[in-house]
Order: sequence, then C-alpha cells, then structure tokens
Amino acid sequence: MEDKSRMTPASSDPTGLHRVLDDRVVLPQAAHRLDARRELWPDEVRIRVEKLNLDAASYRQLEAKHRADDGRVDGASLRAEVLDIVATRGKMQNPVTGSGGMLVGTVEEVGERSPLGLRVGERIATLVSLSLTPLAIEDGLQRWDGLGEQVPCDGYAVLFGRSIAAVIPEDLDPDLSLSVMDVCGAPALTARVVADHVARGEGDVTVAVIGGAGKSGSMSLAAARDAAAARTIGVVPFEAEAALLRDAALADEVVLADARDPIALRDAVHGAGGPADVTVVCVDVPGCEGGAILATADRGTVIFFSMATSFTAAALGAEGLAADVTMLVGNGYAPGHASYALELLRKVPGVRSLFERRLAAHGGEA
Amino acid sequence: MEDKSRMTPASSDPTGLHRVLDDRVVLPQAAHRLDARRELWPDEVRIRVEKLNLDAASYRQLEAKHRADDGRVDGASLRAEVLDIVATRGKMQNPVTGSGGMLVGTVEEVGERSPLGLRVGERIATLVSLSLTPLAIEDGLQRWDGLGEQVPCDGYAVLFGRSIAAVIPEDLDPDLSLSVMDVCGAPALTARVVADHVARGEGDVTVAVIGGAGKSGSMSLAAARDAAAARTIGVVPFEAEAALLRDAALADEVVLADARDPIALRDAVHGAGGPADVTVVCVDVPGCEGGAILATADRGTVIFFSMATSFTAAALGAEGLAADVTMLVGNGYAPGHASYALELLRKVPGVRSLFERRLAAHGGEA
Repeated sequence: MEDKSRMTPASSDPTGLHRVLDDRVVLPQAAHRLDARRELWPDEVRIRVEKLNLDAASYRQLEAKHRADDGRVDGASLRAEVLDIVATRGKMQNPVTGSGGMLVGTVEEVGERSPLGLRVGERIATLVSLSLTPLAIEDGLQRWDGLGEQVPCDGYAVLFGRSIAAVIPEDLDPDLSLSVMDVCGAPALTARVVADHVARGEGDVTVAVIGGAGKSGSMSLAAARDAAAARTIGVVPFEAEAALLRDAALADEVVLADARDPIALRDAVHGAGGPADVTVVCVDVPGCEGGAILATADRGTVIFFSMATSFTAAALGAEGLAADVTMLVGNGYAPGHASYALELLRKVPGVRSLFERRLAAHGGEA
Repeated sequence: MEDKSRMTPASSDPTGLHRVLDDRVVLPQAAHRLDARRELWPDEVRIRVEKLNLDAASYRQLEAKHRADDGRVDGASLRAEVLDIVATRGKMQNPVTGSGGMLVGTVEEVGERSPLGLRVGERIATLVSLSLTPLAIEDGLQRWDGLGEQVPCDGYAVLFGRSIAAVIPEDLDPDLSLSVMDVCGAPALTARVVADHVARGEGDVTVAVIGGAGKSGSMSLAAARDAAAARTIGVVPFEAEAALLRDAALADEVVLADARDPIALRDAVHGAGGPADVTVVCVDVPGCEGGAILATADRGTVIFFSMATSFTAAALGAEGLAADVTMLVGNGYAPGHASYALELLRKVPGVRSLFERRLAAHGGEA
C-alpha cells in the first residue's frame, strides 16, 4: 500500500529543500530529518555508496563516547550509533558536532535534469557534507569494526541539483585522492586570500598556518607558497610533527606552540618572522581564536577552517584586543577546489609525502 | 594583612593577561575570572562607572530566566544574578551567552604608561566588551530595578593598554552617543567591504541588510550608501518595522521576510533587485546563515554581525550549497569606528530619527 502521491513528487529545489521532513522550512544541513527515498527527483543523482569518510571532529566525539574505562573503544556500540543516526535522520550528521564527512561511490542513476554532468558508472567522491546528503545504509555496516573514520558501506546516497561531486582521477591512488578532496576547500581559499594580499602590493606577504603538518594545514602551506607568499610559517604542537613538516619542506619556518595559549602562539609566530599577514587556523581544538588574532598583523586576515571555532570568541576577541583584522569563516567550497588540491598534490612532493605517510600510518585503509 | 607582593605587581600585558586568575593561560575575554583590584598597573586606566549597558543577547537571556509563569520579570532576582556574576567573575560576562555590553563613566586615574590618551575627568564610553573588562560594583545596583539593559551603577572598571574608549561628544545627547557607539563596528566594516566591492569595478553594488531597522542594521544601511552602494535593500520581519525603515528612507527597497526561513529570505532579496553583492546579517536570532548565503551573489560577501551566528552552520551551509561567497566574522573594531558612526548619525537624518525613536520608546532612559 504505497502512497503514490509521495512516490512521484512534483517539484524539487536545487538546495534539496524538497527532501526536508522537518516542520519548519530549513535547509538540508540544518534539518533534523531528510527523506532518503531512493526514487529521484528529475534534477537529482543517486550514488551507490562504497565508503563513508566520517569527519574527524565527528569521529572523535563518537570515539570518546564509546570509550570504556579501560581506554578501549567499543566498536560495536559505536557502529550501532552510526546506524541509528542514519536510520533516524536519513543522513550521517553527528548530533553533537553537527558535522558529517564525505563518501565515495559510483553513479547509479542520473535524473534527466541533473546539472552536475555525471554519468552512470563514474566513480566519484561527494564534496558536500554528509550532514546534508540523503543516505540509506543497506548492509548494516557489517564490514566495519567501528574503529576508524573510514567506513566500508553498501547503500545509496542522493545528490541535489546544487551538490558537488568530483570524479576520482585514474592516475592517483583512490584513497589518496579522497584524502586530498576531503580538505580541498582550505588550499583554494588560502590561495585566493594570499593572492589578494599580494595584489595589494604592500610588500612581502607572510603566512602562518596553525596546524601546518595536518591535512588541511599542509595543503594550505603549499597553496600559500603557490600564491606567492614571501614567507610561510608552520606552527605545530609537538616535535614529531615539526620533524614531519621540516622533512616535507613546505614551510620556511617551523615552530612549536600550543595554539590554545594565545601568548605562546603570538610569540611563536612573531619569533619566526611574523606577525602574519594571513593566518590560517587548521587545528580542530577549541580556544585558538585569541592566539590567531594576536599572531596576525594589523589589516591582516585570519581564516578559520577549524570546525571548533567559536563565532563569539572570534568576534569579541578581536574587538577586545582592538585588532583590525579581517576574519573569514572557512568556506569549504570554491570553484575548482578539488582539481586545484589534486594539482598541488601532483606538483608538490612534500604534500604528497605527508599525505602518503598519513595513509600508511592508518594501516593503508584511510 | 595585605599581601604586598600582590599589590605591587611587576609587569603587565597590553591584552590584560596579567589580570586573568584562571589556571590556564587565556585572554581576559575567555577567562572565567579576572582580578578586579583597584590598583593600576602602569599601562592601565581606571574608570568611575556611572552606567552599564548590558548587551541585548545577554539581557534577553537573563530576562527569560527570571520570568515567572505569569510573564512578569522578577527584577530583584535578575539584579541579584548580575551582582553575583560580577562578584564571582570580576567582570560582567553572561555565562550562557558569553557576551557583555559596554559602560559609561569618568576617567578616575591614568597609569603613567597608558597609551590610550585619556585624561582624568573625561566622560567616556568603553568600546571593548564588558566580557573582558575588570569591574567592581560598589552600590549593590540599588538604583536599578532589573527591568532593562541600562544599569545605573556606582563602581569602577579598568582599561588595559590595548583597550578602546571613546570620549562622549558634547554636541549630542550622551544616551544617543552611547546607543550609536554600541554598534559602531557594523557601519565601519560594512563601509569597508562595500567600498572594496565598488573598487573591484564589477558594476553596481547591491547591499542587503537583514534586520535593517535595528541599530546596527540601520547604521549598516547608511554606511552602505555612504560607501557608494548602487542599491540598498532592508529586510525586516514585521510591517511595523518596514514602516519605520521606509520613513527613515535608509534603503532603496524595504521587504518583509523571516530571516530564519532560507527560501523566504532568498526570494525576498532576489525579488527586491538581488541577489546582493554584500549581505549584512544584523538580526540576533539563530538560523539565519542559510538564507543569508542564498541571498548573496556568486563571489559576494556575507558579514555576520549577529552573536547568534553559528560558525559550523555558516561553514557547512555554504559548502553544502556550493556557494562561492566570502563570509566574514563581524569584528566589532576598526580604527575610527566610533567617530565614523557618530558622523553618520550627524549627517543622515534617517539614522538619527530611528535612534531617537528607539531611545524614546525605551522611556528615555536607554
């Protein structure tokens, strides 16, 4: 007894609004629950999912919640929670962090009015967050032990008219491509902001990247240099990361500081040739706003890519410090961001080596 | 039995770090507790406080908490909570909203190395948030009934080396000046961003201000026009506000929309000549991020001034909509922001009339 009127809906919105099941009008990302039916509206695309890639903040929250007193993570209960979230919400959006992740799969069906240019059979990664992507899991995640962010999965997901997906290139290890695409918004925006500062003609542009040895951080360092920064400073919390970053040769200076200590961060960046004209925050811990502001020159720009950023801490922090800095919310999208990130991976050996090391450290499955 | 070593401390930091009593190194705004001793470090200034101006988000939270079932606010208990916060924290920072407000007073003592240029006896308003300003209340707030954001107060506050204060001009009603200075970051940043867009030479610049009839909203509309915006659109939630804004003649178009409804907001701005090249969000309600992004043109800029803005909703929202927009955290500080706002008040009759009406509506005491 299907309700046929629900199965053949009349119209869709490129934002995916037609799949929101909440009582209020909200966008899919803000929605509590999405309609994950497999039938497509004419501008949609359905993907056969092979893997979910949970975002780091989300997985860390789940891991902490399902960690027993002996320090071990209960993978089965973590997996059960992910299944429950997806069944309840029609999407994989961590209710605590609000974040999602991305997925890899194969194009299964393309609606006749889809503007995305995808073809059936293409292997793609989605570049919009799982937090707004209709998703149904069909295998109970039986191939996943719950112990890592990479989730082998059989099921399907739906892309809207305004979604973004990138075809996985054939010349690169798919896991490597995925790992790069996951953070591709950071190098694109960093390059744009650095180029703007260079174009202002105020002299040499110094860029500091907080969390410079991480995925988005190393990409941002490479992008800053690519955009003609005169000096790049990578800030890392531990000597092991400093060694990694020095080996990769992505930064002119590598310095140690706890980014949550505003004075330590300020002094580290100033001591390495700062203040920075552009400061890029890539560490996923709360409380880095003040230090980032203090590390930045008058009329400089701070780009916050960390999902742990507090809007009020940034706004009131800058005001309280009488700091004339421009503060950007790191937008994960810019046209051509995936291909730009892959280009950096191909042409900058240090980026590639850092990403490959990271994949190897995660047992080859990341 | 005073501890003399505490009474004559050796060194201070312009950020006020030397008054933070927390165990971790955090800036005064992030601190749980400040040292509100009346003795000054050499770069500090002490103000004799005559009035606190609680910020709207903070007062709204307190009001809701102390509202009885019959809808009446228990002013005495609200006042007691404010006294308790200040006694406990050494500053007036609402523990729920994290926000503060500003204060008015008279310069009482100037440290010999203060860089602020203030003189004893000058009547000033602080332009850094109360959330980071050491404060002691000495009259038990006995002249305040707890029923409004304006708090008559006797006590003292301390400004750091890097604080900001503005002398209250003599040609204007002090309450009017204060009301303007409270939001002076918005017109300064709006003017700068609009001027940048105009300088890019991409043709006529359209500016939409969400919450255009409010204090920061009306100032932002005036600043946009001052910075040569070709078209200004004021978005308001109710017809009464629309009438106010039309009377003030600050916007070329005045439209009604609930800013929390992303599609309604998008359609309202597009219908009034949008999308906007610059969208300014001035409404203090959560959930406006998606609509603001959809109201904004490709390569446009969204400025978030609302303290109710969610960083993740903005970042993931733009990514999820594949929206190539620049998103700014509204910094409450820019050089000359107070004098620019006062200049707009003096030269734009519509701004003045809106602010004066608002003061009158609050019984003349606001």
